[in-house]
Amino acid sequence: MHAYRSHTCAGLNKADVGQTVRLSGWVHRVRDHGGVLFIDLRDHYGITQVLADSDSPAFAALEKVRSEWVIRIDGRVKARDAALVNPKIPTGEIEVYVTEVEVLGPAEDLPLPVFGEADYPEETRLTYRFLDLRRDTMHQNMMLRSNVVRWLRMKMWDQGFTEFQTPIITASSPEGARDFLVPSRLHPGKFYALPQAPQQFKQLIQVAGFDRYFQIAPCFRDEDPRADRSPTDFYQLDIEMSFVTQDDVFAAVQPVLQGLFEEFGKGRKVYADWPRIAYRDALKWYGSDKPDLRNPIRMQDVSEHFRGSGFAIFANLLQNEGTEVRAIPAPTGGSRKFADRMNAFAQKEGLPGMGYIFWRKKGSAYRSFEDMLNTPIGEIENPDDGSKREAEALEELKRAHSQNDHARAKFLFNAYFGEHEAAGPIAKAIGPERTEALRIELGLGEGDAVFFLGGKPEVFEAVAGRARNEIGRELGLTETDSFRFAWIVDFPMYEKTDDGKIDFSHNPFSMPQGGLEALSGDPLGVYAYQYDLACNGYEVISGGIRNHKPEIMYKAFELAGYPNSEVDKRFGGMVKAFKYGAPPHGGCAAGIDRLVMLLADTTNIREVIMFPMNQRAEDLLMNAPSEPTNEQLRDLRLRVIPKEA
Amino acid sequence: MHAYRSHTCAGLNKADVGQTVRLSGWVHRVRDHGGVLFIDLRDHYGITQVLADSDSPAFAALEKVRSEWVIRIDGRVKARDAALVNPKIPTGEIEVYVTEVEVLGPAEDLPLPVFGEADYPEETRLTYRFLDLRRDTMHQNMMLRSNVVRWLRMKMWDQGFTEFQTPIITASSPEGARDFLVPSRLHPGKFYALPQAPQQFKQLIQVAGFDRYFQIAPCFRDEDPRADRSPTDFYQLDIEMSFVTQDDVFAAVQPVLQGLFEEFGKGRKVYADWPRIAYRDALKWYGSDKPDLRNPIRMQDVSEHFRGSGFAIFANLLQNEGTEVRAIPAPTGGSRKFADRMNAFAQKEGLPGMGYIFWRKKGSAYRSFEDMLNTPIGEIENPDDGSKREAEALEELKRAHSQNDHARAKFLFNAYFGEHEAAGPIAKAIGPERTEALRIELGLGEGDAVFFLGGKPEVFEAVAGRARNEIGRELGLTETDSFRFAWIVDFPMYEKTDDGKIDFSHNPFSMPQGGLEALSGDPLGVYAYQYDLACNGYEVISGGIRNHKPEIMYKAFELAGYPNSEVDKRFGGMVKAFKYGAPPHGGCAAGIDRLVMLLADTTNIREVIMFPMNQRAEDLLMNAPSEPTNEQLRDLRLRVIPKEA
Repeated sequence: MHAYRSHTCAGLNKADVGQTVRLSGWVHRVRDHGGVLFIDLRDHYGITQVLADSDSPAFAALEKVRSEWVIRIDGRVKARDAALVNPKIPTGEIEVYVTEVEVLGPAEDLPLPVFGEADYPEETRLTYRFLDLRRDTMHQNMMLRSNVVRWLRMKMWDQGFTEFQTPIITASSPEGARDFLVPSRLHPGKFYALPQAPQQFKQLIQVAGFDRYFQIAPCFRDEDPRADRSPTDFYQLDIEMSFVTQDDVFAAVQPVLQGLFEEFGKGRKVYADWPRIAYRDALKWYGSDKPDLRNPIRMQDVSEHFRGSGFAIFANLLQNEGTEVRAIPAPTGGSRKFADRMNAFAQKEGLPGMGYIFWRKKGSAYRSFEDMLNTPIGEIENPDDGSKREAEALEELKRAHSQNDHARAKFLFNAYFGEHEAAGPIAKAIGPERTEALRIELGLGEGDAVFFLGGKPEVFEAVAGRARNEIGRELGLTETDSFRFAWIVDFPMYEKTDDGKIDFSHNPFSMPQGGLEALSGDPLGVYAYQYDLACNGYEVISGGIRNHKPEIMYKAFELAGYPNSEVDKRFGGMVKAFKYGAPPHGGCAAGIDRLVMLLADTTNIREVIMFPMNQRAEDLLMNAPSEPTNEQLRDLRLRVIPKEA
Repeated sequence: MHAYRSHTCAGLNKADVGQTVRLSGWVHRVRDHGGVLFIDLRDHYGITQVLADSDSPAFAALEKVRSEWVIRIDGRVKARDAALVNPKIPTGEIEVYVTEVEVLGPAEDLPLPVFGEADYPEETRLTYRFLDLRRDTMHQNMMLRSNVVRWLRMKMWDQGFTEFQTPIITASSPEGARDFLVPSRLHPGKFYALPQAPQQFKQLIQVAGFDRYFQIAPCFRDEDPRADRSPTDFYQLDIEMSFVTQDDVFAAVQPVLQGLFEEFGKGRKVYADWPRIAYRDALKWYGSDKPDLRNPIRMQDVSEHFRGSGFAIFANLLQNEGTEVRAIPAPTGGSRKFADRMNAFAQKEGLPGMGYIFWRKKGSAYRSFEDMLNTPIGEIENPDDGSKREAEALEELKRAHSQNDHARAKFLFNAYFGEHEAAGPIAKAIGPERTEALRIELGLGEGDAVFFLGGKPEVFEAVAGRARNEIGRELGLTETDSFRFAWIVDFPMYEKTDDGKIDFSHNPFSMPQGGLEALSGDPLGVYAYQYDLACNGYEVISGGIRNHKPEIMYKAFELAGYPNSEVDKRFGGMVKAFKYGAPPHGGCAAGIDRLVMLLADTTNIREVIMFPMNQRAEDLLMNAPSEPTNEQLRDLRLRVIPKEA
């Protein structure tokens, strides 16, 4: 018999009853049922219940084993009593009566239990990662990640892509984040850098004549820690293709991601319609360039409704250039309570509050338009806070009706005398007609609300986006069991920096739409062939059609203030390559960690990485980073400057 | 029509004749046949011949294109004349008559031609790697490498292994080579290290309860450059399994490698018999722990034949302890000319020369044993240089014959009077009987030779191994169209260092054979469960069954002079893990670059890496390593010490 096992801990079933078997694994749980010891024996594959009573020669030894000891047992397979069958595990119909036991690896008292998966501080979990990973949830997350990577590779190969490995110890790459440096021993004083992404290499691969490249590529950015980002290395599905347009990249990627989410989404719906949304529209409609489309709310520019209105704050604000008032419709949010809750949210975001209107049933209302027409004008008395009194409104209504202007008559009826009334200070300030016009434009009704933010969009858009998320979630409007993708396209090539200069707003290596010609006009009006893929509020892919023409590249950098010499110095290898026959090419990169987080339904990246750093970029298990030896520093001709210096 | 292509350059055949098509690619070659321009248009997939004459509106533009320009052409598919069909390429039956051309990427004058693959200095090739890679051989090597990696992954998955990624920015790993360090910005003065291999992580993965791990893992060693090794990063197929013995690892690995070489060996024979050879025997028989078994020569210890013999050099040498004389049989090498050639080899290796014997046909010889018996003793006259004269030999021969000692009689006949004579000073010095005994033991005959090296084996074994290679190659004994594998097993756990101390001879983490008990005896007699796989003279795999028991590990390190505290300090994470329930486990790692080199039949590692460093560990294309900015150094609190310091 094999030294350690004849079967795995998932390998036995009813057909094996009567057999003598050997199993090895971890003691998952011990139960002592008065003279009978039950042990759940666990390995990578599953769990088998083993037992011994005092008749067994192994009983005394088995009494000593504790949770998470590794043992080897020999025994005989028995059928469980019908009442004790566990249909949830493949071995649930049998148990193994132990006749011999060997301790392969004892365990000290556990700093972290495996069975039960009790909540523990993350520092403990990372220090004892080898225990943490034994927990079922973590085990499953790691297997999910591995299966996702495998599936992506298979799918890419099936689609005619080829995987190539690119250098990890290399030169600085121009991704805009901070490089990790690696001092050179053979060239003291010089440093390599770890690649922020294989961007230049994958482009060089195209220039070298290879088509349809991909790689599950490690990337390195020395960034300040954040919950959903690894502070050191992360992986991306890196893709590049030759002789393609943006449409070709989308057509290659969609089946891969769509298929991935269908395969591993645990039944959550994966929408096949992937709309393309211009970057500008994404910010306007969703307050984010990675909108969560599971949330049906689309924001709108409603400035015109406030220009010159009685709501002075917005009316005054709109007199400044570049300002806007944007509405966040909140269907079913029509209550004072919800409005108050959103105000609290706004205050947490540092805003004075958030203007709103909501529509509720009117206490006393005319039953119908006909009722209204039959009401004598003199009976209307309640003054309105708006610019027009109800009596005047009724006069106009009747006039419109008599002139067969039914639309106007109906509008006035709804604004002044309909079944709903608009609540909130803004409705009062702008009056019934503007309020009703807003309601119609936003498609809202009784029980609904709308919130407003005003100012310069670039200042409030992010908050607006978060408010939209909050509203969608609070009101249960946002689907929770689906994946909704959208391509975000037409990114602006340039932006104005705070000090008024023109700089690249995203990737400087994307091809400007319109090519060289477009670069002779207003830089701020130039769009790039650059795109992201958003899913459920996360950016899961970023990419572009590259600028493969040196003359356009020089011009593009010149507009951002970089002379040719600087381009040659910083990206010399790539620019040189473009001068020797470069094909049009483009591609994208998908964050693996992010994809797995979405699939595993977690927002903590450390739940989907085998051995992650903590948020201070430390490996608590392996003790990294650590002090170098003097010899190492001498080899590298480096000296660490003391803190005081 | 698509902006760049309706077909790839391998996509058209006779069925497409008459169609209007669009192709994009590189101008591989231009031929001007008096008014008709022929261009081989090349892309990743293949080559298509396109042409234009002066009737074509594209003719003038096409006249301007040069080698390696990227162009897009529109045209009509024509059948080639039967005489012009090229059966070697899939598009060989057609050509495309060009009606429109667009230059997508022009090329400056080439520093390195693609067509023809002329030999160029490696520095040029690396500086213009994007051109070098367009050459057919390099393109094929890169595709081979990618396909090998893909195949390995598939096969590993099929065998129930799971791929996990392990950290790249981490702590120093105890592989014995020099680490690449990465200074930490968040913890100035502290450094991460790039892993020399995922050794500790893959063991932790087993302790964490995952079985059958693999990874195509990047590894980093700051080693001094060598032709067959990358000076920075390389890849290995990393494998680890739980609850296994050495046999299990071999059984898992053999089908993978066997299958790989059958699939990608281009028809070369892959021997299915993988012998297991003890480390000590490998050195003795082949002078190498990575023997090339395509070479049938097996060396032997022939000390007994020289002890007390007339060959004083060896006879004296053998009086010193630990010395040996080893024979390198050289079947078919029996000529003065070859002996001289091997002497020249020996002198190149720094030896005074290499003793030899070879057997040639005797000028005048007795026809047969019977002839001999009928010869009167008085007719034997020629004195022999050995210890015995032929006349005495004949007397003894006849005596043996008359006493029915046929073996002795035959031996004496062959030694003194047979058809072969042994040539060379050694044969003379040791005499016919010792020479004949040697010949019989080595199984040699007329036309064969044997070479000798003597001294301490550890001093001459490497040279002996190289001599064996040289002999095998020179004499055409070594197969050239096959792959022969062998497991090298039973590595000694410890060795004596030059200063007489005991140190680990290989991997300190392997389990000593015999466990704790074995460690209480002579350390130099302890073998480890450690193994290599050799193929054609290269080490392609190295591995071991690991020491998963803290008490054995502490003891093993203690024998090598490391106190427990040092073990805890250097390998604390792993040792700690072993204290919380560790399974027996083991595995191995196969060098991907090495495997691809073997399959691609090259000895230069840079031929199988997309973007390799040169031998000074520089990336000539991307300009790495390079000077850091002052800001970078400040962020890391580092100062470079000037050379003079």
